[in-house]
Amino acid sequence: MPAENSVGIVRTKYFTFARDEPMLLDSGESLGPITLAYESYGELNEGRSNAILILHALSGDAHAAGYHSLEDRKPGWWDDTIGPGKAFDTDRYFVVCSNVVGGCAGSTGPSSIDPRTGKPYALNFPVVTIHDMVNAQRRLMDRLGIPRWLAVAGGSMGGMQALQWAVSYPELVRSAIVLASTAISSPQTIAFNEVGRQAIYADPNWNHGDYYGGAPPKAGLAVARMIGHITYLSDRSMRQKFGRRLQTRERYGYDFNTDFAVESYLRYKGNRFTERFDANSYLYITKALDYFDLSNGHRGLAEAFRGVKARFLVASFTSDWLYPPAESRKLVSALTANGLDVTYCDIESSWGHDAFLLEVETMTSLIGDFLRRMERIVGGGNAAS
Amino acid sequence: MPAENSVGIVRTKYFTFARDEPMLLDSGESLGPITLAYESYGELNEGRSNAILILHALSGDAHAAGYHSLEDRKPGWWDDTIGPGKAFDTDRYFVVCSNVVGGCAGSTGPSSIDPRTGKPYALNFPVVTIHDMVNAQRRLMDRLGIPRWLAVAGGSMGGMQALQWAVSYPELVRSAIVLASTAISSPQTIAFNEVGRQAIYADPNWNHGDYYGGAPPKAGLAVARMIGHITYLSDRSMRQKFGRRLQTRERYGYDFNTDFAVESYLRYKGNRFTERFDANSYLYITKALDYFDLSNGHRGLAEAFRGVKARFLVASFTSDWLYPPAESRKLVSALTANGLDVTYCDIESSWGHDAFLLEVETMTSLIGDFLRRMERIVGGGNAAS
Repeated sequence: MPAENSVGIVRTKYFTFARDEPMLLDSGESLGPITLAYESYGELNEGRSNAILILHALSGDAHAAGYHSLEDRKPGWWDDTIGPGKAFDTDRYFVVCSNVVGGCAGSTGPSSIDPRTGKPYALNFPVVTIHDMVNAQRRLMDRLGIPRWLAVAGGSMGGMQALQWAVSYPELVRSAIVLASTAISSPQTIAFNEVGRQAIYADPNWNHGDYYGGAPPKAGLAVARMIGHITYLSDRSMRQKFGRRLQTRERYGYDFNTDFAVESYLRYKGNRFTERFDANSYLYITKALDYFDLSNGHRGLAEAFRGVKARFLVASFTSDWLYPPAESRKLVSALTANGLDVTYCDIESSWGHDAFLLEVETMTSLIGDFLRRMERIVGGGNAAS
Repeated sequence: MPAENSVGIVRTKYFTFARDEPMLLDSGESLGPITLAYESYGELNEGRSNAILILHALSGDAHAAGYHSLEDRKPGWWDDTIGPGKAFDTDRYFVVCSNVVGGCAGSTGPSSIDPRTGKPYALNFPVVTIHDMVNAQRRLMDRLGIPRWLAVAGGSMGGMQALQWAVSYPELVRSAIVLASTAISSPQTIAFNEVGRQAIYADPNWNHGDYYGGAPPKAGLAVARMIGHITYLSDRSMRQKFGRRLQTRERYGYDFNTDFAVESYLRYKGNRFTERFDANSYLYITKALDYFDLSNGHRGLAEAFRGVKARFLVASFTSDWLYPPAESRKLVSALTANGLDVTYCDIESSWGHDAFLLEVETMTSLIGDFLRRMERIVGGGNAAS
């Protein structure tokens, strides 16, 4: 049974657009029709001023909160922060979460059918960017009749989308919540992503992306996911969580079976990921991450934020080495250089990059207080309560 | 032409032992005969008191200095520090470097012929430990007629061997030089090693280790090496070296070919590694790294160093996140708790783990000064000059 502060049983909805006129992408290619999977929690108020868009990370999906059925063992990926009385309080806000274009959880991506051929796109799917993902969400916003987001919010790649929203659609975004993220993907991030992709390419089942209907490249995808998992944790959290504890043995096995708990964890996480994620989507989404650089085409990051109107909540985590606090500080400098209203917090945590999902208490008060302030600025009359 | 301060043209030598009686390993298994590839530079003095053992890292070999032929484009892997007038001054010291057992550069390892079957050992090769590697080098020491090392020295896995020497053979080691290393492999190190192994296992050419005579698992090994390479650099050095520079393109390619210089670098390094390294050796040596824990069987690390007599030079590098300075500080505490003579330096460097190979000037004075002090302690009469 869902707890009292759960949004309860929800279902994923689907919105299809660009049926007649395909959407132009940053690459110059076009894509259409496009389906976005999304979920929503809470009610849009009469003034339509209480809508919040939740943006997910690399491996996320539209199912951010609640349960799809009573049998579900786990709720949506950010259930800790979305629900009645939680950070994203569904008694007050209309919360929307959309899967990204290029993904594999109900939205159009490389595993979708290419209408020109009647077969899955595979590598014929065009490369998409964070900007393209946001442009697709823009269409969903119209469909839902939302004139302006009270907030766009996300961690990691979700934070990149939030920044892109603020830059691309300054009139449509009252505030942006950017957690454990960056405005510019670093060479180290690109390096980790590239090695993950190489692991997928190296799997003969990948077959240059053409594996739908056959055996998918699970081994390669599992390796890519294991690499990712290391970067989501920290040296310290691994010491706390695993140390050098042996998994099932009392002493070293002197063979290549699992000795250490940390090995067992990675193998499990890697294998489980292959049951729900498409390897080609992994390639496309990591490429979108690599291309993300808001300073591109500008004389610096500050210039990129010229014209932006949103207020910002930026949070980094001391042990996050994938998107280290220094990146958030650069972002904050670039925002404040434009005279923008920025709240920045560097949160002490040992959980590494994953802290934005795990430091629930801190996130709840930080995000909750920020949103209440945004409500007051918009004007008390529009809020749901 | 080798430069004036080069050891010049050298050749690798081979020492075979345990022909009649195999060497007992930590696993309880036995191995024999065992061949160690080694090189030596400089001359053993009359007092036989000027011998230094150089210990290599994961992918190293016996060829630490000089050239094998005039056609060689690159010298040995630590040529910057070994030679006349260099840190390990071959005008003063007799410098030996031995390849590790389990390796693939002339020493007995999984690619060697198993005398019981006449075929390569492959996974029938016993799992070896850092302690086993050191025990094999102990035999080489006898063969060379060296009564006591003036110093045992290495970075990374080489530093682990130096520590193991000091612990296992306190009477035979006057000093140990431990660079960018640790006394206990961390769960994060184990995690990276395990993902590298998984990449090799995932390559169908690996065939459970049985690939000799056929196509080796190059794709898997390349991925493992790429993962390793990221851990040898630092976020900062990657920004300095590559930034977001594109390799050959003027703009994003919007495809899965190489966009960024950092991708190109990793692909190149990964592929080149497969030309010189055996995938099974990669498995065995990473396993030895994972098992390394000098505190194992003791009530703490300090207890592990009881009875140790060597003097120590320990150096860490500020941007090394694979073996972070905190690990070296723990090591130093455990050594000083035993009243040992320890010189410790945390060296400011942006080069990450690789700094021990790259910070040549600092290494030269630090190691040189330390060795001169060791010489003075041993007594001036024994040195070569």
